[in-house]
Amino acid sequence: MKTALYAPPHTETAQQLAPRLGRSPEWVVDRTGVVERRISDESMAVLGARAACEALQGTAPDLIVNASLTPIQLIPDSSVFIQRELGLEGIPSFSIHATCLSFLVGLQACGALIQAGSFRRILLVSAEQGSVCRDLSEPESAALIGDGAAAAVLERAPTDSDSALLGFAMRTYPAGAAHTELRGCGTRRHPNDPRTRPTDNLFQMNGPRIYRMAYSHADEVLDDAFAQAGLSRGEVDLVVPHQASGPMLKAIPRFGFPEHKVIDLISTYGNCIAASIPMALATAQQQGRLSRGDTVLLFGTGAGLSLAAMILRF
Amino acid sequence: MKTALYAPPHTETAQQLAPRLGRSPEWVVDRTGVVERRISDESMAVLGARAACEALQGTAPDLIVNASLTPIQLIPDSSVFIQRELGLEGIPSFSIHATCLSFLVGLQACGALIQAGSFRRILLVSAEQGSVCRDLSEPESAALIGDGAAAAVLERAPTDSDSALLGFAMRTYPAGAAHTELRGCGTRRHPNDPRTRPTDNLFQMNGPRIYRMAYSHADEVLDDAFAQAGLSRGEVDLVVPHQASGPMLKAIPRFGFPEHKVIDLISTYGNCIAASIPMALATAQQQGRLSRGDTVLLFGTGAGLSLAAMILRF
Repeated sequence: MKTALYAPPHTETAQQLAPRLGRSPEWVVDRTGVVERRISDESMAVLGARAACEALQGTAPDLIVNASLTPIQLIPDSSVFIQRELGLEGIPSFSIHATCLSFLVGLQACGALIQAGSFRRILLVSAEQGSVCRDLSEPESAALIGDGAAAAVLERAPTDSDSALLGFAMRTYPAGAAHTELRGCGTRRHPNDPRTRPTDNLFQMNGPRIYRMAYSHADEVLDDAFAQAGLSRGEVDLVVPHQASGPMLKAIPRFGFPEHKVIDLISTYGNCIAASIPMALATAQQQGRLSRGDTVLLFGTGAGLSLAAMILRF
Repeated sequence: MKTALYAPPHTETAQQLAPRLGRSPEWVVDRTGVVERRISDESMAVLGARAACEALQGTAPDLIVNASLTPIQLIPDSSVFIQRELGLEGIPSFSIHATCLSFLVGLQACGALIQAGSFRRILLVSAEQGSVCRDLSEPESAALIGDGAAAAVLERAPTDSDSALLGFAMRTYPAGAAHTELRGCGTRRHPNDPRTRPTDNLFQMNGPRIYRMAYSHADEVLDDAFAQAGLSRGEVDLVVPHQASGPMLKAIPRFGFPEHKVIDLISTYGNCIAASIPMALATAQQQGRLSRGDTVLLFGTGAGLSLAAMILRF
């Protein structure tokens, strides 16, 4: 799996954002762990295509899967715009949407499509311009969100390699549906409905409730994935979590994964929604923290509320 | 594959709709082929859950995939609301979005996930309340859209069965991205941006351009799928096309499939977007036009512009 990330050049610091939220920079950093994040005035398709170009290294994909939350528009789906930015034409394209877990779900589905022989080189892109949907009147979630993109190129592992997907577990709990919402942009609170309020079109998050619910279900999901892999938690070389928030990342060692094995980018990029996990994976590759044969845990939460864990031999 | 459809009870006739479009009922029927369509005041999750309940026949799925266009809201994705309507909790859920081709793409991805052993009983749901996004000032597309839902329950074929996915081909052409659009509900024309116009939040379609582009690429996609299946077009028992429009359905015999093999529901249901193909498939099953062992072609177009063809031994 070749990965690449693209971080838009404009940095917004806690110092710059705090006055717009009516909070101090210290409050922003303490609550969210985000010292700075990138803000893009370019669309997610442009960000995604930059990451994709680097991951593709001149090769052509035979399938493009967009695995992102924030779309450019409702129709067509964003995979079409990513393909257009790449200057391609005729490549089958579609989108997978599981909010912050879109990349993990995409990886699972694309892995199965390659195993089934349906495709040979799949471009999986997660790119977010979520800053457009920040609700500045909700400081905690607004301070978390950052823009960014990452891409992975997936091919069948060479026959002499033991790279493999060892386990995948996911749970979705509709009881937590209201904990993370963007209530607009659909039929329920349609933009043209006069009852739709501006805040309906922005991210709403109840951090403490997500934290509690995720915490209470995490062991079950991890146990399922590790049982499939036939491994214990101690055998993991690297943990690549969704960069949900500083407090969420700080809780990971309590599940048996020491801090030095955890990729933590929250202070520099914030929560880049679906792009968080692949940006962390690409960073680990770039920094030489991930070598072929390593056992890697990808793990995170998403709106739903969903939790998912994937164990890879890289 | 068990299928079921749910058609909301309220029927809107061409007679009733025509005055709202400033056209005659004859114009509506001539241009679109839609004599009547169903209009729902219930959400796509309710429609989808009704179809799903019937398809599940009391069994529990281990994965729920929503393959629909019109979401209830941007976050969480609609699979969560379908699961909630079904009274379930904890089942992994996500969405696939390829506009009108979402069900076909979902079938291909779910088939691979079952083949890989990742899941055993997948509930695939396409449900649309697209009527909310009709632009009455664009009579041709507004007259096409109808509401409806269908679901399929996918399991590994029994060992004594020769049911199989024989071929799948898809092409996406971003050059046709502007032919079918809903420009709003994303970052480009965000609902809170004062420059976003009400029509940006409604379906826009250029029927003649879609028709020409689809027509010019159809043979390539069909040839690819039939080559994979090792079959000729004459060996197909049944054609289940996307119910795009009367003219699109009338063109199918020109590609070598006689009219009596084509499932055509356009006059009674209109274009139910992603639900069209599975509603046609479920109708064929209900009417006894589809038996185990039959060779079936699923075929359609979607925004992108995309074309896809799947050949199944049912």
